[in-house]
Amino acid sequence: MPSVSKRGEQTPLSPFRKLIPIADRVKAAGKKVYHLNIGQPDIETPAAALAAVRATNMKVLAYSPAEGNASYREKLVHYYHRFHVDLKAENIMITTGGSEAIQFMFLSCLDAGDEVIIPEPFYANYNGFAHIGDIRIKPITSSIETGFALPDKEAFESVIGPKTKAIFITNPNNPTGCFYPQEALEELAAIVKKHNLFLFVDEVYREFCYDGQDFFSTLRLDSIRDNVIVIDSLSKRYSACGARIGALITYNQEVLAAASRFAKLRLSPPGFGQIFAEATLDVEEAYLRDVKQEYDRRRQTVYRRLQAMPGVVSYKPGGAFYCFTQFPIDDADNFCRWLLEDFEYNGATVMLSPGRGFYATPGLGHDEVRIAYVLNTTDLEAAMDCLERALIEYPGRVENTVGVQNNALAL
Amino acid sequence: MPSVSKRGEQTPLSPFRKLIPIADRVKAAGKKVYHLNIGQPDIETPAAALAAVRATNMKVLAYSPAEGNASYREKLVHYYHRFHVDLKAENIMITTGGSEAIQFMFLSCLDAGDEVIIPEPFYANYNGFAHIGDIRIKPITSSIETGFALPDKEAFESVIGPKTKAIFITNPNNPTGCFYPQEALEELAAIVKKHNLFLFVDEVYREFCYDGQDFFSTLRLDSIRDNVIVIDSLSKRYSACGARIGALITYNQEVLAAASRFAKLRLSPPGFGQIFAEATLDVEEAYLRDVKQEYDRRRQTVYRRLQAMPGVVSYKPGGAFYCFTQFPIDDADNFCRWLLEDFEYNGATVMLSPGRGFYATPGLGHDEVRIAYVLNTTDLEAAMDCLERALIEYPGRVENTVGVQNNALAL
Repeated sequence: MPSVSKRGEQTPLSPFRKLIPIADRVKAAGKKVYHLNIGQPDIETPAAALAAVRATNMKVLAYSPAEGNASYREKLVHYYHRFHVDLKAENIMITTGGSEAIQFMFLSCLDAGDEVIIPEPFYANYNGFAHIGDIRIKPITSSIETGFALPDKEAFESVIGPKTKAIFITNPNNPTGCFYPQEALEELAAIVKKHNLFLFVDEVYREFCYDGQDFFSTLRLDSIRDNVIVIDSLSKRYSACGARIGALITYNQEVLAAASRFAKLRLSPPGFGQIFAEATLDVEEAYLRDVKQEYDRRRQTVYRRLQAMPGVVSYKPGGAFYCFTQFPIDDADNFCRWLLEDFEYNGATVMLSPGRGFYATPGLGHDEVRIAYVLNTTDLEAAMDCLERALIEYPGRVENTVGVQNNALAL
Repeated sequence: MPSVSKRGEQTPLSPFRKLIPIADRVKAAGKKVYHLNIGQPDIETPAAALAAVRATNMKVLAYSPAEGNASYREKLVHYYHRFHVDLKAENIMITTGGSEAIQFMFLSCLDAGDEVIIPEPFYANYNGFAHIGDIRIKPITSSIETGFALPDKEAFESVIGPKTKAIFITNPNNPTGCFYPQEALEELAAIVKKHNLFLFVDEVYREFCYDGQDFFSTLRLDSIRDNVIVIDSLSKRYSACGARIGALITYNQEVLAAASRFAKLRLSPPGFGQIFAEATLDVEEAYLRDVKQEYDRRRQTVYRRLQAMPGVVSYKPGGAFYCFTQFPIDDADNFCRWLLEDFEYNGATVMLSPGRGFYATPGLGHDEVRIAYVLNTTDLEAAMDCLERALIEYPGRVENTVGVQNNALAL
């Protein structure tokens, strides 16, 4: 029997994937598991957009154009106007989820052996997509002490080398929830321009910026207009992870031409998903406002509860629906497994993502976890009850050695 | 401005893609274009399966499992029983179209620099997927004189080298329409076993085998059970190209594990598409029987018309809905462009795929085209009227030099 490829064996998985079989087992045995491990919201998908799919009346479910339906791309132009971004339909390529947009971006801009700088911790699946393209990720470490703010110019420039072709950021950030303001992005633009790099920006959490902060899209950075490539997705915005509709957006015509080759190769993005997606553009703005308010309530809940847990280091995230937190534990992988297998409180437990997989630098994140606040506040309170109790009972609890105490992070 | 990647610039496109802007232009100017260039059928999608999507009543359009919905995978097991293939749900991974299944298969089994043998002419997008993975295609040439039958053992063994890891066939074939019978596949199995190779088989045209021939799936080749990986798709079977639902099927647990890593990376296949797909399994068998009869009528039409065109070399294809044909022309790329730009008959013309792009060996296919008989017989007759006239008028017409005359191919 022939053996599988090395890249097939070695493609890295998301940090929580290893725990899924354990979670399935304990759930089958009757334990309630609060899933704070994955960005799958419980928020209702806009009913009007789902209704548009139910109202379809086609005879033939045909291929769409490789770059997506023209009508959808043209309407999307107006969506971005709300963020003061001025696009033409041709600047927007519809993809099968944000995931495919990441692949097209990597393959279009980077050859095997090329390097991309990413502040860590970062969305773990970037590792896998880089691995497919034999692209090297050069991490620069952001820190919980600053609420995982964007590293400074010196940090970026310390890792820029002859093979460096891009910087990749996520704003607002997954897994940290950090919001990058306009000034930080303008500083980044100067680095990008000076070193002639691409700036890759995953903006899928654009709609979820709290505390009155205005989202600033890197597509507005006129000084590096042709360097910027933005990843987008409906999954989080409209609680529509199953639609598998995203986008790659850029003013750079050469990148569009290259990405178009990959798009044509896979023929077209999903047909029903595009019908759904086009209909989301007619959803009342109140929907997104309400969803943001709901996530904000959850954010406050998680923050308040974490602050009350002795030895936990946390901060109030400015965007998205994640919080990256340091626990007084020996090892987050062990802790997350123990939570599922050996712990319960009121018949329930909580599933989290261990931190290590979000770092490229070995050893980092060993006592950190990502919390996705994707459940309603009632469930979230119950999940926090579990977590609070678990941190007391966990046999691998250690005293916090970094000298940062709770409530000490004034961000 | 940073430059795009070499692989972005060099990813090969389908042979007809270059002609699409020309076709769009002449259509906008009022010329009717009969599209025989692409496998986009005009057959109606099963109404009952479309109705299943209209009947959805979900609150949250969530991620499905990365490998596809369990209920769908379990029901698919029964579909393959009809072809005497005995699978478990775990052997079937649901993918975003057959295209994604090809990518997962390539990446899971082949590393950069590995070789895969493919009889040419072959489905041109295999080139692009191989290019992404830096995989080398070693072509062996099949010939119109045999109706593009599978090359013999010696032909395969002449190109097997230390880097060869797989043989890849399409049965029934796109672009040739050739049907590979059980005996030919068993001979292939012996080669595969002897040299410890993977056997990749694209079976997406399985339902369309004519002249009473029974389709034999390579999943029934027990002697190489763990070597076989099958690509499947709903696109052609149910005229549902826009659903973007396919499958990767294998008994090989290691391949499934590797492919699962790539599947998890892109999170899940399309949600609505899977609902549609599951409903196709309840569509009455009469649907597929009727569709096959319709394609058979079209096949007879195209064959009859081609046989009557002086200098054209053709054969009666045994499966799928393609015919690969030799014309008395200087250059098929020129001819196909001329058909769109410079020719019309009764206000119409026909769009075909030039043959060169289906070969990996330079120079081959220069006077061949692929005809996709995806239109109803009325349109097909009109398209053949255009073609017949065009072959007379075309300034680059040459006399047939290979010594094979029409009707000389007794297959």
